[in-house]
Amino acid sequence: MHAYRTHNCAGLDAGNVGETVRLSGWVHRKRDHGGVLFVDLRDHYGITQIVTDADSPALEVLDGLRAESVVTIDGTVKARAEGTANPNLPTGAIEVYARAVTVQSRAEELPLPVAGEQDYPEEIRLKYRFVDLRRESMHRNIMLRSQVIASLRRRMIEQGFNEFQTPILGASSPEGARDYLVPSRLHPGTFYALPQAPQMFKQLLMVAGFDRYFQIAPCFRDEDLRADRSPEFYQLDFEMSFVTQDDVFNAIEPVLAGVFAEFANGKSVTPAGEFPRIPYRESMLKYGTDKPDLRNPLIITDVSRHFEQSGFGLFEKIVGSGGVVRAIPAPGTAEKSRKFFDDMNDWARREGFAGLGYVTRKSGEFGGPIAKNHGPENMEKLYAELGLGADDGLFFAAGKEKDAVKLAGAARTRVGEELGLIEQGCFKFCWIVDFPMFEYDEEQKKVDFSHNPFSMPQGELEALESQDPLSILAWQYDIVCNGYELSSGAIRNHRPEIMYKAFEIAGYSQAEVDANFSGMIEAFKLGAPPHGGSAPGIDRIVMLLADEPNIREVIAFPLNQRAQDLMMGAPSPVSTRQLRDVHIRLAEPPKAAPTEAASAEG
Amino acid sequence: MHAYRTHNCAGLDAGNVGETVRLSGWVHRKRDHGGVLFVDLRDHYGITQIVTDADSPALEVLDGLRAESVVTIDGTVKARAEGTANPNLPTGAIEVYARAVTVQSRAEELPLPVAGEQDYPEEIRLKYRFVDLRRESMHRNIMLRSQVIASLRRRMIEQGFNEFQTPILGASSPEGARDYLVPSRLHPGTFYALPQAPQMFKQLLMVAGFDRYFQIAPCFRDEDLRADRSPEFYQLDFEMSFVTQDDVFNAIEPVLAGVFAEFANGKSVTPAGEFPRIPYRESMLKYGTDKPDLRNPLIITDVSRHFEQSGFGLFEKIVGSGGVVRAIPAPGTAEKSRKFFDDMNDWARREGFAGLGYVTRKSGEFGGPIAKNHGPENMEKLYAELGLGADDGLFFAAGKEKDAVKLAGAARTRVGEELGLIEQGCFKFCWIVDFPMFEYDEEQKKVDFSHNPFSMPQGELEALESQDPLSILAWQYDIVCNGYELSSGAIRNHRPEIMYKAFEIAGYSQAEVDANFSGMIEAFKLGAPPHGGSAPGIDRIVMLLADEPNIREVIAFPLNQRAQDLMMGAPSPVSTRQLRDVHIRLAEPPKAAPTEAASAEG
Repeated sequence: MHAYRTHNCAGLDAGNVGETVRLSGWVHRKRDHGGVLFVDLRDHYGITQIVTDADSPALEVLDGLRAESVVTIDGTVKARAEGTANPNLPTGAIEVYARAVTVQSRAEELPLPVAGEQDYPEEIRLKYRFVDLRRESMHRNIMLRSQVIASLRRRMIEQGFNEFQTPILGASSPEGARDYLVPSRLHPGTFYALPQAPQMFKQLLMVAGFDRYFQIAPCFRDEDLRADRSPEFYQLDFEMSFVTQDDVFNAIEPVLAGVFAEFANGKSVTPAGEFPRIPYRESMLKYGTDKPDLRNPLIITDVSRHFEQSGFGLFEKIVGSGGVVRAIPAPGTAEKSRKFFDDMNDWARREGFAGLGYVTRKSGEFGGPIAKNHGPENMEKLYAELGLGADDGLFFAAGKEKDAVKLAGAARTRVGEELGLIEQGCFKFCWIVDFPMFEYDEEQKKVDFSHNPFSMPQGELEALESQDPLSILAWQYDIVCNGYELSSGAIRNHRPEIMYKAFEIAGYSQAEVDANFSGMIEAFKLGAPPHGGSAPGIDRIVMLLADEPNIREVIAFPLNQRAQDLMMGAPSPVSTRQLRDVHIRLAEPPKAAPTEAASAEG
Repeated sequence: MHAYRTHNCAGLDAGNVGETVRLSGWVHRKRDHGGVLFVDLRDHYGITQIVTDADSPALEVLDGLRAESVVTIDGTVKARAEGTANPNLPTGAIEVYARAVTVQSRAEELPLPVAGEQDYPEEIRLKYRFVDLRRESMHRNIMLRSQVIASLRRRMIEQGFNEFQTPILGASSPEGARDYLVPSRLHPGTFYALPQAPQMFKQLLMVAGFDRYFQIAPCFRDEDLRADRSPEFYQLDFEMSFVTQDDVFNAIEPVLAGVFAEFANGKSVTPAGEFPRIPYRESMLKYGTDKPDLRNPLIITDVSRHFEQSGFGLFEKIVGSGGVVRAIPAPGTAEKSRKFFDDMNDWARREGFAGLGYVTRKSGEFGGPIAKNHGPENMEKLYAELGLGADDGLFFAAGKEKDAVKLAGAARTRVGEELGLIEQGCFKFCWIVDFPMFEYDEEQKKVDFSHNPFSMPQGELEALESQDPLSILAWQYDIVCNGYELSSGAIRNHRPEIMYKAFEIAGYSQAEVDANFSGMIEAFKLGAPPHGGSAPGIDRIVMLLADEPNIREVIAFPLNQRAQDLMMGAPSPVSTRQLRDVHIRLAEPPKAAPTEAASAEG
């Protein structure tokens, strides 16, 4: 017989009754029913009920063990008594009568309980992560993560991608977020940096002639942390050669739709091939954001035209001075109190906006100051155009376009939530496409890149030479799911002459471009294919599938929100010898920070 | 038609003749045959011959392009003329007559050629790695690496393992090799370290209740570099719960044998389930090493007994004073000159040994001073015992056991190579098992751990309490292939009381153990399963399969032997601001090192 087990703790059912078996696992729960002891024995696979009584030497041993001790049980499989079977457990029809028990590991008092999953402070959970991970929800999350990643890999390989590792000890780059630095021992005074993303390397793999690259890539950003950010995170980094934007979409939609459908647990998923493609400007208008949550049915409309001449002077003035008025429907709000609408206005003010105007309507009758001043006839016209009915309210976000868009987007979300309109049980994907290549920088009073300078402009060199820069779109795209951006991506600009021209439009000389981006440009001068890709965030995907708002719930051993590993004690002081080896010394922490430093070590 | 290609460059054959196609790729080679231009167009998948002539506008464009330019060809598939087909190429039956060409990227003069794979200095190859990787052998190596890793993953998952990521920003540990350090911004004066291996984390995953973990894990060691070492390397890290050593072997043999067989390219591979298990002491005796190359048929024998009383005084003296004499056969050496044997002796002296004794034999007649002094009758007895014949020579390694073992092992390799005895075309695996738990440290005059203090001693607590420490074996094992150690592994010691006892034998108090290893021990006190694993080196596996002696030939973007990325310029100086952010300053490099520093930057 095997030293530890003939079956795992999910492996026995009614078919095994009468067999002599050996099981190993953790003492999950114990219940003493007057001389009969029941133990839920737990392992990675499941739980089996162990029973023992005074006839067995196992009773005394098990009785003396704390929960979470590890034992090996020798026993006999028995059918549970009539009425005591547990249909929710794969092993619920049987129990194992323990004849003998071997203690593999005697648990001391636990810092947090496992069974029951009582809420516990995150600090304790992270310090004793190896206990916390035994909890059912954490075990499920981490297994989900593992399975999601394995599925992503399988699907990418099926799509003809090959996984390559890119370096983790890389070069520091002046752009982007803050790098994690690694001092060099062999080259005094110099540093490696951990990659914020393998962007350069994946493009160089295309230049090197590999056709379809992917990597479950570890990335590092030394940024201030939030619930959904970890210093160390993973992305499904991919890149393809000789492709158009359509090819990228066609390659990745089956992967994302497939993996979501596989783990959605009954939720519906936008099918591959049917991801809506929403131009950036349309998204900003209709959803007030470039990360629209399509589970929310509300659509924002520009109604500025209606207020060019209006009895409601404020809107007339706004529109007259180049501003806009955007309307957010609040359908079926006839029975909502005035307070509902006023609360929305208060919320908007708290968020730093001037206020959120509104019109109420009940059985066709309008209410509120805007309706009164604008006049019922004009309101009727507006309602007819928006397709709104006799019991629908309407909110207005008015002001400079940038502000109105932001407010309208936030109001759309809030109204949708307040009215319970967000469709549950679904994952709705879309692409945001046609990002503008350039924008006018009001502060610097000049044209600048609006997003990524390295995306290919639509129309390529000809567009740059002949179009108004502000009208030029880029082959750049975001993938969005339920209002979360999973990643940006682009068809890259692989032609030095187009890159120089694009930078010229944004006010940079060829010399400046060469000084900052020579590596990439020199590579492109030695034979580069057209290429493009993206990099959906893995942690975000798992968070969506696990329905967890905190990234640390889907990482086995995360750093805490102060970037500390409380279990292993990282970061920690190191020896003078270690510092000398890598040619650095400690600088005095800035005067303002001693409290921070002290609390960090506490 | 697709913007770039209807087929890839390996996609056309005789069945496509007459079709209008579009191909994209790199201009691999051009040949001008008097007005007819042939171009080998290359992409990731293969090569297609393009042909064009003065009737096509493509001629002039292609004629004006340098090799490695990227083009899109529109043309017609034609059968190649009788006698010009190339059966070695999947597309060798056809060529594409180019009607039009679009230049996607015009290549400037190349720093190194791609076609032909001429030898080039590594520094240039690494600086222009994106060109170097286009070479057929590099492309093949990197694809092999990708496929090997994908296959390892698939096989591990089939064996019931789940992949989990462990942190890369970890804690610095006083043991082992030098850590790469990462200064913390939020916690002045403290540092993360990059993992040398995820050893602690994988054991904690077992303590956390996950049953079978694996990871293609990036590991980092700031060590001096050699041809087969990279600062950043990958291992197939794995760990299992509730297992014996046999379970570990049974789980991993199919994975390794499977992946080797898949990519061995016709070479034979030790089948899973048949990996020989060689006890450490037997390996040291028979092969003179714990990394035996089983392709070498030579077996070392201890022949000390034969020289206890001998006319050959040197050996008698050595054996008399506690030393040993080990014999290495040199079969079929009757026709070898005296110089062959003397050269071996010279080689041994150059390697720092006292010398390698020998006996020659031709048609039954012994030669050399040892045979003369030991006497032909005694030699006959010795030969009979070793099963050697009338034309076989014999080498002797004599001295203190440690030295004799080392010399015998090296001589076995050299004799095997010189006589052409190493079996070619095969991968021979074995396990080395039964490593001693303790050894006597001659310098410190005390018993110490001989390998890993955290392995479980065979016989557990009882052995520690009752056996001579030097006779205790550990559940520790190495996997070896063709003389290369792929990894160490062990059944871990998961019981604090056994750990304290083992350390006590090696002279460490409980307080010392707690001070250094409290993290692990505290975890083991909260319910730990018996567990074990190993971590075969991925780079080494790929090197064996690709038959490359240099690790940089199987890494897409390796650091060079001075740990520099010549392409991206890492490591590099960083801004004062970046240093200040992480609370460090540069120290002056030590006085002795300016030359090193200067050359490093050159």
